[in-house]
Amino acid sequence: MLAVFGHQNPDTDAITAALVYARLLGRQGIDAQAYRLGEPNFETAFVLREAGVDAPPLLETLPAGAQVVLVDHNESAQSLPNLHELTVTRVVDHHKLGDLTTTQPAYLRFEPVGSTGTLLLKLFREAGLSVEPLDARLLLSAILSDTLHFRSPTTTAEDRDAVAFLAPVAGITDVEAYALAMFAAKSDLGDTPAETLLRMDYKVFPFGEPTAPHQWGLGVIETTNPGYVFGRQSELLAAMDNLKAEDGLSGVLLSVVDILNETNRTLVLSATEEKVLREAFGVETQGHVADLGARISRKKQVVPVLETYFTPQG
Amino acid sequence: MLAVFGHQNPDTDAITAALVYARLLGRQGIDAQAYRLGEPNFETAFVLREAGVDAPPLLETLPAGAQVVLVDHNESAQSLPNLHELTVTRVVDHHKLGDLTTTQPAYLRFEPVGSTGTLLLKLFREAGLSVEPLDARLLLSAILSDTLHFRSPTTTAEDRDAVAFLAPVAGITDVEAYALAMFAAKSDLGDTPAETLLRMDYKVFPFGEPTAPHQWGLGVIETTNPGYVFGRQSELLAAMDNLKAEDGLSGVLLSVVDILNETNRTLVLSATEEKVLREAFGVETQGHVADLGARISRKKQVVPVLETYFTPQG
Ligand SMILES: [Mn+2]
Ligand SMILES: [Mn+2]
Repeated sequence: MLAVFGHQNPDTDAITAALVYARLLGRQGIDAQAYRLGEPNFETAFVLREAGVDAPPLLETLPAGAQVVLVDHNESAQSLPNLHELTVTRVVDHHKLGDLTTTQPAYLRFEPVGSTGTLLLKLFREAGLSVEPLDARLLLSAILSDTLHFRSPTTTAEDRDAVAFLAPVAGITDVEAYALAMFAAKSDLGDTPAETLLRMDYKVFPFGEPTAPHQWGLGVIETTNPGYVFGRQSELLAAMDNLKAEDGLSGVLLSVVDILNETNRTLVLSATEEKVLREAFGVETQGHVADLGARISRKKQVVPVLETYFTPQG
Repeated sequence: MLAVFGHQNPDTDAITAALVYARLLGRQGIDAQAYRLGEPNFETAFVLREAGVDAPPLLETLPAGAQVVLVDHNESAQSLPNLHELTVTRVVDHHKLGDLTTTQPAYLRFEPVGSTGTLLLKLFREAGLSVEPLDARLLLSAILSDTLHFRSPTTTAEDRDAVAFLAPVAGITDVEAYALAMFAAKSDLGDTPAETLLRMDYKVFPFGEPTAPHQWGLGVIETTNPGYVFGRQSELLAAMDNLKAEDGLSGVLLSVVDILNETNRTLVLSATEEKVLREAFGVETQGHVADLGARISRKKQVVPVLETYFTPQG
C-alpha cells in the first residue's frame, strides 16, 4: 500500500492531488491511499464540500521503510518529519527540486506548470484513461487555486487548456463564478486565530549554504478582502514573532495577496527582514508593511529572489 | 541553446540518449545540441558507425548559468564538474535520484526502466511524433546495451516492448545477432591501456553520511571474453591502486561481467575492499578476485547493497 500525500499546511492542490493520484494509481492496479499532512483550508473545505467528498485522513507518522508517493512538494522540510527514512517511489510535482533523494530508481514527474492538477491530467491522458467528473472537478479546482484563475505568473498555456478541457467534464459551466466562490470561501477567515492564519499557507525555505542555511518562514494569505487581514496586523506580527523564536528562524514574512487586484503587501517582522527586503527587492518597509507590487507568486517571484540574494556568487 | 549530455565515461545509453533527445527537442521547437563528456567506448563506436552518425562533440566546460539537459545521470559526481553553477532545465534518467537540485521548476522525468532509451521512446509517443529509423536504431542499441539484451535484472517489460517496436522501424531483422555484434565490439579491448579499461564504465558513489561520505569508485567491464581481462589482472590492480590514491577514494572495485554467462567476478584491490565485500555481500576474496555470482547489475545489485551497508540504521 502506497501512502500518497501533499505538503504540510496543505492547499487545494496538495489535497486534491493526493485524492486524484491515489484514484488514478488504483485504476492502474496499484494499491494507494491518499492522506493529508494538515487541516484543509477554507477554500479546500469548500471545494471538497461542493464535490461531495471527504478530506483524506490525517497522516502524522509512518514507520521507517514505508513506501510513499509525494505530490505537490518534494522538500523534506515540507513533508512528513521522517521522510529520509521512508522509501519514495513516486513524485508528481511542479516545484523546484530540493533535497529529495531516492535509494532506488523511482517514478519522478516534474514539469514547470501552474499546478500539480495540470500534470495529473497529463498522466490520465498518457495512461489512456478517461477522467471521471469527480476527478475533473478536483483537478480544475486545483488549477484555479494555484494559478488564482490564471492571474498568477506561474500560469502556463497547459493550465488554461486543462481547465478548458476539465470544466465540461466536471459539469461547471461558469468557471469564473466557481473560482470567485472558491476565493470568497478562502477569504472568509472569520475568527480564525492569528497563528492559524499565519500557518495556513506557510513554508520554511533553507536559503544559501546547504550545510548552514538561513531558514526563512514565508507565509501567504491569498484573499479577496485584504482589509480584513490588515485589521489584524498587530496579532499577526505577534504570531510571527512567536514562530520565529520557537522555530529558530532567520526571518519571517507574511505576504497578503489581493487576488482580484493582483498585488502583494507583505507584513515585515523586524529590522532584519526589512534589510533583506531592501537589498533583495529594493523595497522599503513602512509601519511593518512592504509593498511588493505585483509579485503575487511566492514560488516564482519571491523565493528565487531570496535564493539568489543568499547564495554566494561562485 | 540547451546543452544535452549524458554521464562521464559515457556508455551507449549516455551517448545515444543525448543525440536522440536533442533531436526530439529540436522537433518540438527547442534549440538543443548534444554533447558527450568523454570518449565513446568500443561498443558505442560500433553503434555509431553502423548508424552512420558521428559522436557528439566533447564538452569540457560551460559558463556559470548555462542551461543544460541531463540524460542517463543526475548526480554531480558523474556530470560536468561545475554542475552546481549550471541551470538544469530538463532531466531524463532511470537511476536513483542523488544530489541534484534545481533553482527553478524544471522538467524531470525518471522511471525505473532498463535504459534511458526506453523512456525516450515514451517521450516520442507522448509528443505524438513518429520515430525515424536513425532514432529507432540508436534507442534500440541503448536498450540492448543497458539491459545486456534483457539479461540484466534491470530489464522491464517496457524495455522488451520498446525493442519489439523499434527493431522493424530501425530495419534490424535479427536483434540477437545485432546485440552479439555490439557485445563483441565492446569486448575487443586489444591493447587498450589498463587505466582506460578501468575508467571505461566507471562511476564514483558517495556512500553513507552525505556530509562525510565514503567515496567508492566502481568500475565495470562487460565482456564476452572475461579471460582476456583477467589475463591483465596485475596491470588493472596497479591502475586501481593509482586511481584510489589520486582521487582519495575509500575503495575501488572493478567488476568483470561475463555477458553471455551472466556472472560477475570482481577485482578487489586491498584488505579494505575485501572486508566490505565479506560483510556487505558475504563473499570471500581469493587472489584479488571475489565471485559476486549473478550480480551483474551495478545499479541494482551492487550499489544498493553498499548503500545499505554504509548507511547507519536510524
Ligand atoms: Mn501546487
Ligand atoms: Mn543508462
